[in-house]
Amino acid sequence: MTLNVALLGAGRIGKVHAKAIAATEGARLVAVADAVADAAQALAAAYGADVRSIDAIEASDDVNAVIICTPTDTHADLIERFARAGKAIFCEKPVDLSVERVRACLKVVEETGAVLMLGFNRRFDPHFRAVRAEIDAGRIGAVEMVQITSRDPGAPPPSYIKSSGGIFRDMTIHDFDMARFLLGEEVDSVMATGSALVDPEIGRLGDFDSASVILTTASGKQCTISNSRRATYGYDQRIEVHGAKGAVSAENQRPVSIEVATAEGYTRPPLHDFFMTRYTEAYAAEIAAFVKAVDGGAPASPNGKDGLAALLIAEAALKSIAEKRAVSISEI
Amino acid sequence: MTLNVALLGAGRIGKVHAKAIAATEGARLVAVADAVADAAQALAAAYGADVRSIDAIEASDDVNAVIICTPTDTHADLIERFARAGKAIFCEKPVDLSVERVRACLKVVEETGAVLMLGFNRRFDPHFRAVRAEIDAGRIGAVEMVQITSRDPGAPPPSYIKSSGGIFRDMTIHDFDMARFLLGEEVDSVMATGSALVDPEIGRLGDFDSASVILTTASGKQCTISNSRRATYGYDQRIEVHGAKGAVSAENQRPVSIEVATAEGYTRPPLHDFFMTRYTEAYAAEIAAFVKAVDGGAPASPNGKDGLAALLIAEAALKSIAEKRAVSISEI
Amino acid sequence: MTLNVALLGAGRIGKVHAKAIAATEGARLVAVADAVADAAQALAAAYGADVRSIDAIEASDDVNAVIICTPTDTHADLIERFARAGKAIFCEKPVDLSVERVRACLKVVEETGAVLMLGFNRRFDPHFRAVRAEIDAGRIGAVEMVQITSRDPGAPPPSYIKSSGGIFRDMTIHDFDMARFLLGEEVDSVMATGSALVDPEIGRLGDFDSASVILTTASGKQCTISNSRRATYGYDQRIEVHGAKGAVSAENQRPVSIEVATAEGYTRPPLHDFFMTRYTEAYAAEIAAFVKAVDGGAPASPNGKDGLAALLIAEAALKSIAEKRAVSISEI
Amino acid sequence: MTLNVALLGAGRIGKVHAKAIAATEGARLVAVADAVADAAQALAAAYGADVRSIDAIEASDDVNAVIICTPTDTHADLIERFARAGKAIFCEKPVDLSVERVRACLKVVEETGAVLMLGFNRRFDPHFRAVRAEIDAGRIGAVEMVQITSRDPGAPPPSYIKSSGGIFRDMTIHDFDMARFLLGEEVDSVMATGSALVDPEIGRLGDFDSASVILTTASGKQCTISNSRRATYGYDQRIEVHGAKGAVSAENQRPVSIEVATAEGYTRPPLHDFFMTRYTEAYAAEIAAFVKAVDGGAPASPNGKDGLAALLIAEAALKSIAEKRAVSISEI
Repeated sequence: MTLNVALLGAGRIGKVHAKAIAATEGARLVAVADAVADAAQALAAAYGADVRSIDAIEASDDVNAVIICTPTDTHADLIERFARAGKAIFCEKPVDLSVERVRACLKVVEETGAVLMLGFNRRFDPHFRAVRAEIDAGRIGAVEMVQITSRDPGAPPPSYIKSSGGIFRDMTIHDFDMARFLLGEEVDSVMATGSALVDPEIGRLGDFDSASVILTTASGKQCTISNSRRATYGYDQRIEVHGAKGAVSAENQRPVSIEVATAEGYTRPPLHDFFMTRYTEAYAAEIAAFVKAVDGGAPASPNGKDGLAALLIAEAALKSIAEKRAVSISEI
Repeated sequence: MTLNVALLGAGRIGKVHAKAIAATEGARLVAVADAVADAAQALAAAYGADVRSIDAIEASDDVNAVIICTPTDTHADLIERFARAGKAIFCEKPVDLSVERVRACLKVVEETGAVLMLGFNRRFDPHFRAVRAEIDAGRIGAVEMVQITSRDPGAPPPSYIKSSGGIFRDMTIHDFDMARFLLGEEVDSVMATGSALVDPEIGRLGDFDSASVILTTASGKQCTISNSRRATYGYDQRIEVHGAKGAVSAENQRPVSIEVATAEGYTRPPLHDFFMTRYTEAYAAEIAAFVKAVDGGAPASPNGKDGLAALLIAEAALKSIAEKRAVSISEI
Repeated sequence: MTLNVALLGAGRIGKVHAKAIAATEGARLVAVADAVADAAQALAAAYGADVRSIDAIEASDDVNAVIICTPTDTHADLIERFARAGKAIFCEKPVDLSVERVRACLKVVEETGAVLMLGFNRRFDPHFRAVRAEIDAGRIGAVEMVQITSRDPGAPPPSYIKSSGGIFRDMTIHDFDMARFLLGEEVDSVMATGSALVDPEIGRLGDFDSASVILTTASGKQCTISNSRRATYGYDQRIEVHGAKGAVSAENQRPVSIEVATAEGYTRPPLHDFFMTRYTEAYAAEIAAFVKAVDGGAPASPNGKDGLAALLIAEAALKSIAEKRAVSISEI
Repeated sequence: MTLNVALLGAGRIGKVHAKAIAATEGARLVAVADAVADAAQALAAAYGADVRSIDAIEASDDVNAVIICTPTDTHADLIERFARAGKAIFCEKPVDLSVERVRACLKVVEETGAVLMLGFNRRFDPHFRAVRAEIDAGRIGAVEMVQITSRDPGAPPPSYIKSSGGIFRDMTIHDFDMARFLLGEEVDSVMATGSALVDPEIGRLGDFDSASVILTTASGKQCTISNSRRATYGYDQRIEVHGAKGAVSAENQRPVSIEVATAEGYTRPPLHDFFMTRYTEAYAAEIAAFVKAVDGGAPASPNGKDGLAALLIAEAALKSIAEKRAVSISEI
């Protein structure tokens, strides 16, 4: 069976997903919707799809699945709407910035039995997947401690902070999901600290551009996260997992791996400077996983509950900073 | 203008090129020819192209360019035929295993003024290109010495040896081209040694599976090449270039870059185990370069003369082993 | 002038220092004291020194300086005694496990004007020093975040825990000192979590074998520390410092740097398995720095105040775990 | 038993050996001889030894062994003299620059039954030894190919060329010895090329500063050597050995292993800039091995025959360049 997919949102990430659908056997892009008509038209033309309104897609019998890449504040409504319409749903994270709204939305998903997969793309990075595979294979024994380093090449414009929900809901949330992916046990409590060292304006808006977090599970497993909105040398994305028998780590990725040796030393080029080039393979793999999940091959994962779990950790981190104490997830 | 391309040969490498054309803006696959009808049909269908005979392609007004991926012994004839037909030509290496035949073929190319690009794909590997870019940028000063390591994961079946022309014409020829690409000066003389250490049957057929070569230019620049048909740890492809001010090198590539640390030590996964996954990006980039060359953007490079030059070095290497002496290219 | 040094304590670390003195120009080992007569005798003989009692050393006119390597609970008394005797003092860390006792001891040091240097050997590791030198040279701009990974090959016997004061006072204290060495600003508050994942007996004794800590300075600089008493792959000691213009890091050290490549992948040997081989150069350099400091070349550093500062952070970490909150250094 | 050692030659390398003797259990420096009285005096004083003439040392009953670090042209005479005097001998390489003279000298050594060890220090480098240990342990299967890269930070003054015997007898000779150490089979034939790319004056003196060599054994094992008298980034000393089951390699060594990451990329410091700091551990280990050999623990290795074998390869390399052909060792 071929999965007929409609794309809601023809922006930057929408283009990435359209390309991924085209490259996935068993899937076909049939419709594109976007508030900007030209954007929808260009993307639809490139992949032989139609431009349709969201209403029309909802009513389309030839559409089995939707990929939601619209602005964050529309996600929950669209998920509910397409869940009720019986379509399989892939939605960019987050479901919503409000825990309450996410819970309500997931209730609808549950009631309708809809397939919902959430776009935590890093779970599909081949290097991070390989880390997880080594854990699953028992190479490092029982997991004890995780270290996640995640630093963006540059800070977003302060205006972005408001709509993004701040560093923990927007950036660290990927690390919270990765921690859950690797720890093999739910996070129980959170300690966090945050500062605005990169851009004081971010601080004036009540957000942080530099953050450190410790996550602890009930059995005492620990995860440290180090975040910054500044990394002059490129997109710094490393994980290491320590277990009873050893450790496994994923190195940084660079587009070109050469080395120049001169009297000044040995120099390798900077890392990828953009998350889209860094995670090219991950974006393709997550769409392939979604297609497979809809096809019944495997449960959709990560799903809405994973999105909620990561959001709860983000909320706990914010509360930890505000109250200068360890915050339990159960408090949120 | 869109370049309409016909593909001659729908085998392994033909599929790679078909995919590359599809991904190249300004190019379109319009026809596929293959002696095996099913293979032609499947590939044509996948990219919305027609199946046509070679004769039909030669006569097609809507075809501007051909990509030749047929068996080696058909290359020279096809090049001549399509050069006369006024089509631009991309041909897998080699033009022919006979120096005389190559010379005759290139004469036709010259007379017809046809665009001919030869498939020395490694020149388009982003890492090797970056090495060359550092040289061109003057980072290491005047080039003095080049070291090329090129080891295949496994030996081909002895039956392949006959049609391939042996290790120097089939495998080392890539390194000879790379040496020319990096030295910035023509090779003047060749010293080579070869043994059959991997598979005695290869030795019985008069070929080698392990070879070491020294190339020297008129001004005294040197290049060493170390080749083997055996590399248990994957496809080993390294170059380093030393100049008056420093050195630049390209590291090996692996599909997954993680590291596992246990009491036994720190282990990274093997390298790519296949040239097609190792050089994925190079194959795409060479077709893009061909399309650009036909479009008038730049001269086709590497071209037929580059193919001849590499073949002359291969001949000199064989003569060097046979006569246990340094052989000048001018002797060939 | 030659510095005549007496060594108090001829155990494991005493031997290291005796060797360092012998290798330091301008210094000479003249006397050794140890409760175990044979140990004192053997070490004295090896370096042409006398065996003397601590009383005799205190009264020796020919001794300018003492190196204290006796059990921890004797340090503060010996420091006070030799400070009053007018000798320069190098003392293994810590001064004492009690903050109050340390403060009293340092008061005596201050009153007597004695030179006191404390054995935070890692400040003298050539790699860590080079990290600091890059910071001082402005290569990475203003320091923003520090990440310290420090994992011991194996847990000490539970019996050791009592006398050592636990993981924070014994092991992490080196990282606290390193954080101060690198942050360039005093630590203001501490968040910590600890578990007994390696040895449950350690947990029963109220201590931890796995710990994560976040240190924050008044201006918002952050340091994360990840500690474990288990590292099957050797002595894991890494630091990285991130600043406004870049980052600098020190890699792990291994006794032999070879790599074996097979079908299973690329394997490098484990790291050093013992702190004494890992920090060989550091031990030599710290004694050289002490000799230089006594000679008037530079202030003794790290000194007693550095020892106190690190101990206060350790106390704050313990309080943070007990009270599940961020603890300010000013509270201790 | 303590080995009483006399040192002939108190220059740069003599000092290194004096220090090594002092650090070797079971050995003691008792006498130093040098044409420069001050040099002998200073070194003798530093280690509690006497200054004696060579004649006096020859006649000294309390001297069991000599270490010869005098100028090259005195080596053979001194070896013969001390062999006849019944002393064990460690001699810096080479025995002599003349094959004939070496053969005559080794005859005397054989007749007298003297212990003679030759200073091919690199065999004692811990990393290269570890490479050899992996081969011996069967980790890479039967050795097939060896690649040696050996580049000096800078060219010696042309005046040095004459006394050194040129690049092959002075510099590459270490690589010839390393090839023999690793190949596990005698070299049968040699192909070499050389140029003067670094310093034209070296070329005018008939020597080379850039050389490439292929060594072949009777069974077809191959070794490539790449040499240059120029390496702006430090002392470049790498080996890799490929076998039927895998490969093992030794990386370059640098005094400080940190990495700075900025917008320009990731930079590690240059390598050691001097062979004495690069091979510190090797120099100590070779003297320890000599002491052990004299003590009867193991045969002296490398010995005079190893010196001769390496010299024969050097001669063959020179003949190969002169006659532009492969030269068999049996021709020398």
